Amino acid sequence: MIFICEKHKLQEGILITQKAITGKSTMPILEGIYITANKKEVTLIGSDMDVSIETKVEANVIQEGTVVIDSKIFGEIIRKLPNSEVRIERIENDTLQISCEKSVFNVVYMNSDEFPSLPEIDEEKQIQIPQNILKNMIKSTSFAVAQDETRPILQGILFEMKNRKLNLVALDGYRLAIKTEYLDSDFDIEVVIPGKTLNEVSKILDDVESIVNITFSNNHILFNLNKTRIISRLLDGKFVNYNSLLPQEHKLLVEVNKQYLQNGIERASLMAKDGNSNLIKLEVQQDNLIITSNSQLGKVREEVAIIMQGEGIQIAFNSRYLLDVLKNMEEDIVVLEMTSSVTPCIIKAKETDSYRYLVLPVRLIR
Amino acid sequence: MIFICEKHKLQEGILITQKAITGKSTMPILEGIYITANKKEVTLIGSDMDVSIETKVEANVIQEGTVVIDSKIFGEIIRKLPNSEVRIERIENDTLQISCEKSVFNVVYMNSDEFPSLPEIDEEKQIQIPQNILKNMIKSTSFAVAQDETRPILQGILFEMKNRKLNLVALDGYRLAIKTEYLDSDFDIEVVIPGKTLNEVSKILDDVESIVNITFSNNHILFNLNKTRIISRLLDGKFVNYNSLLPQEHKLLVEVNKQYLQNGIERASLMAKDGNSNLIKLEVQQDNLIITSNSQLGKVREEVAIIMQGEGIQIAFNSRYLLDVLKNMEEDIVVLEMTSSVTPCIIKAKETDSYRYLVLPVRLIR
Repeated sequence: MIFICEKHKLQEGILITQKAITGKSTMPILEGIYITANKKEVTLIGSDMDVSIETKVEANVIQEGTVVIDSKIFGEIIRKLPNSEVRIERIENDTLQISCEKSVFNVVYMNSDEFPSLPEIDEEKQIQIPQNILKNMIKSTSFAVAQDETRPILQGILFEMKNRKLNLVALDGYRLAIKTEYLDSDFDIEVVIPGKTLNEVSKILDDVESIVNITFSNNHILFNLNKTRIISRLLDGKFVNYNSLLPQEHKLLVEVNKQYLQNGIERASLMAKDGNSNLIKLEVQQDNLIITSNSQLGKVREEVAIIMQGEGIQIAFNSRYLLDVLKNMEEDIVVLEMTSSVTPCIIKAKETDSYRYLVLPVRLIR
Repeated sequence: MIFICEKHKLQEGILITQKAITGKSTMPILEGIYITANKKEVTLIGSDMDVSIETKVEANVIQEGTVVIDSKIFGEIIRKLPNSEVRIERIENDTLQISCEKSVFNVVYMNSDEFPSLPEIDEEKQIQIPQNILKNMIKSTSFAVAQDETRPILQGILFEMKNRKLNLVALDGYRLAIKTEYLDSDFDIEVVIPGKTLNEVSKILDDVESIVNITFSNNHILFNLNKTRIISRLLDGKFVNYNSLLPQEHKLLVEVNKQYLQNGIERASLMAKDGNSNLIKLEVQQDNLIITSNSQLGKVREEVAIIMQGEGIQIAFNSRYLLDVLKNMEEDIVVLEMTSSVTPCIIKAKETDSYRYLVLPVRLIR
């Protein structure tokens, strides 16, 4: 194997494949990048079994071949090289020679036969979605993925195609996040993708409108970004019927400036850190939302102007759950729908129903 | 105590005093900021006994008074407030009320009588130095301060006034850093200041030419930056006679582009991480410096163009010690003076003798 390529293009490819290389696998080969030089291009693959990422790098291939090399060392070497042409050659003694200007590295490579092959994906069910929209959908829901391992299915995000809508849904025992986009597709599907995988996918997605092709197979999902393909396994089992968790009606509707609400809650939560409860109280009065909190540290009172429909209420929350939602919304005005101090609060954007967030209140002992 | 001041000015003052508040003291009162409202200004003091920082904040003082408040909570509250006027008032029940627009915080304060008073400094021996120069002198030497605690005096930086020159000197068992500036002063002095303190001082210093007044007393040093005063205790004991460590002559002189040398060593050290030895070998040949390293990971060879006077040499170093020096030098061309593979290497800038670095080689077993 011999090829020559631009340092910055190779570095970009390494950074992409490294997102799949977690170093947590028990198989040492999975700490490597699988490199194939073939015709006019070089393919890099990184994998941790759960997710595999394959990307192409433009290169002048002089001799075809394959090698697996430790991803960390390879990445560090390429990163530190001058911004010039890099020549990569497999030489004797299981050694890969990396040369660039006046630098020559000889690094021992691994046995490429041990590297697992990528799962086959049949290309039947496919949807198209712009990169920036998918990136935003993941960002808008992934924070609500369950952190504890007692219900593995909740460590994933539901990808649900239904009635020409794509819903991404995540929930733990305390809150629920739904992000919806209209999508022209003629089939329905429901799969659950590990939250960690999607976080890595979203890092690779750019804030551009170019299309991602998503292909669903029985056990895998494939995100095809043209030069880069990401294949993730799906989680086994059925997701929670999240629609049944959403209240059908509400008695109080509050319209509020998102940034003012977020700032008020952030400040109030400074006094709520005592014992990690993050407990803040909201009191909805005519035209005003009063946020209070107190602990051994002291107490705080915040006032935020609102427009309300319905009757006032007193309700308490873990401030972190409200802040997670508000930080992920870009809209100026948000709407809170509530019924009582012990029933869920729904948070939406005023102008669009593309987000739906549910947060459970904290029941106060009186 | 009642005063009103701009949020951003108060925040700036808090950030400065917090540099002295390490949270490592056994006295809880030292986690607080000592606030005095007096006439037209407010003074903030933070201290960890080793170093104390006092800074002034412009304010409208309505009622004079003193209070000590937890630095972390106070800092977080002020930081999160809107960029507006903040009103601070001592109210009943040992409580400090902080209000700003629609936010009201009530925070319990501490007993200000417990706060230690600042040491008295007699203002006899004084020097003046521009902030940016002092900042650079600290940066150029502090990396060589000893990290282990076996010789406490080496955890400090020597401030030596001698023959109208100020020398800052730091050393551990493996390298020595000397930074010199000409300074118009008519006295000689030698004091040793804790390295940690000087690092905090350098964070407060700006990259500007305005003057710092430095006053020396028997046990303390005072840095006066106009609005801010920093007082540090001195280390007891006598510093090493560093001049005796500097070789009087050399047999080989190498002139080299600093950045090329640094890049080459950085790359070579990627292969030198095995067993944390960071061992790299330098071979000086006619017009070329060859840097090599090898370990279980593989091997590397780097070539850097040089101008040399004297005979070629083979010498080995811990790459980290060379890199620490090179990263701190801003000059384009550096000069290496060597005699043998077992005697110290001196590194200087070509154009100025304001830096002198000494690095011990690693003795190779042949």
